[in-house]
Amino acid sequence: MARWEPDARARLANAALDLYLERGFEPTTVTDIAQRAGVTERTFFRHFADKREVLFDGTNALQEGVLEAIASATEGTAFDIAGSALVLGSAFLEERGEFAGRRTRAILANPELHERELLKLARLSSAIAGALQARGTPAMSARLAAEAAVAAFSAGFERWSSGVKSPALAECIEAALAEMREIVGG
Amino acid sequence: MARWEPDARARLANAALDLYLERGFEPTTVTDIAQRAGVTERTFFRHFADKREVLFDGTNALQEGVLEAIASATEGTAFDIAGSALVLGSAFLEERGEFAGRRTRAILANPELHERELLKLARLSSAIAGALQARGTPAMSARLAAEAAVAAFSAGFERWSSGVKSPALAECIEAALAEMREIVGG
Repeated sequence: MARWEPDARARLANAALDLYLERGFEPTTVTDIAQRAGVTERTFFRHFADKREVLFDGTNALQEGVLEAIASATEGTAFDIAGSALVLGSAFLEERGEFAGRRTRAILANPELHERELLKLARLSSAIAGALQARGTPAMSARLAAEAAVAAFSAGFERWSSGVKSPALAECIEAALAEMREIVGG
Repeated sequence: MARWEPDARARLANAALDLYLERGFEPTTVTDIAQRAGVTERTFFRHFADKREVLFDGTNALQEGVLEAIASATEGTAFDIAGSALVLGSAFLEERGEFAGRRTRAILANPELHERELLKLARLSSAIAGALQARGTPAMSARLAAEAAVAAFSAGFERWSSGVKSPALAECIEAALAEMREIVGG
């Protein structure tokens, strides 16, 4: 029972996503997920707080990386700094393309998950605004820069994760940031 | 029982807000709200689907007004059109300043209401993007313009509604739109 499960976390995440896409999020239970992954329910709960968190695991890591990047940024406008930090902080997602694509499909198919995704993005945006303020950007400017950068990030991420053979994630985010700059400032 | 209640709707909305701020959103029941407003529960449900909708009544009217303004806009960039439409579509809120300020406090104090507000703003943004696409703006540009404009609207609205003696709503939104333009494009 207590055997070592080297890739239990990844197996659980994949099993959960498979089931959400096959049956829908609501009817899928933690028991189903653990069974499909070939581990115990206890193992599931060692890795994830609930079945929703399986999908938002990366968001927390993303936020940490982004905030670190902002803290160590040297110069640029608030929007530049937020945008570059989102590119840097999301680099670890690059190798999860296939997972990300299925994750996006599962989230868009379920209003509750979609709502959760919006909330996580709003929190990311607030955290970025806070980090920009800590560097001296006035509150209103920090908020607007953060929201515009996160909106571009989200659009770029979605394009990347839904493409069959799309450019690299960094490239998709950079393109969306550039387009945001052109559309709003142009 | 079936007497005519000329301002029952406004009385219900005010009673609900008072109770949310006094006791919190969770513990307040529709019975409490109807009692405080001096009407029956049936009257409550003639006006609102549930106790949450009392706070998001204006959002639906806002969306309608914004979409109409986009449809009849003559020229400008996608961001200009979205921004002006938000100013025009929200004009009816100008006289609800006191209500709006209390509403903002109630929403920020309750995570569930805050989540709902985010969802409503996301839907407003999608609707705006759709209306811009209908005018020929490419999908990605329409999405980015809509999200930036709604972020500016939301920041301007919040500043307006939380100020004791703040400038007019239109002025607050215009200022946030101008600041967005400067921060992202500058």
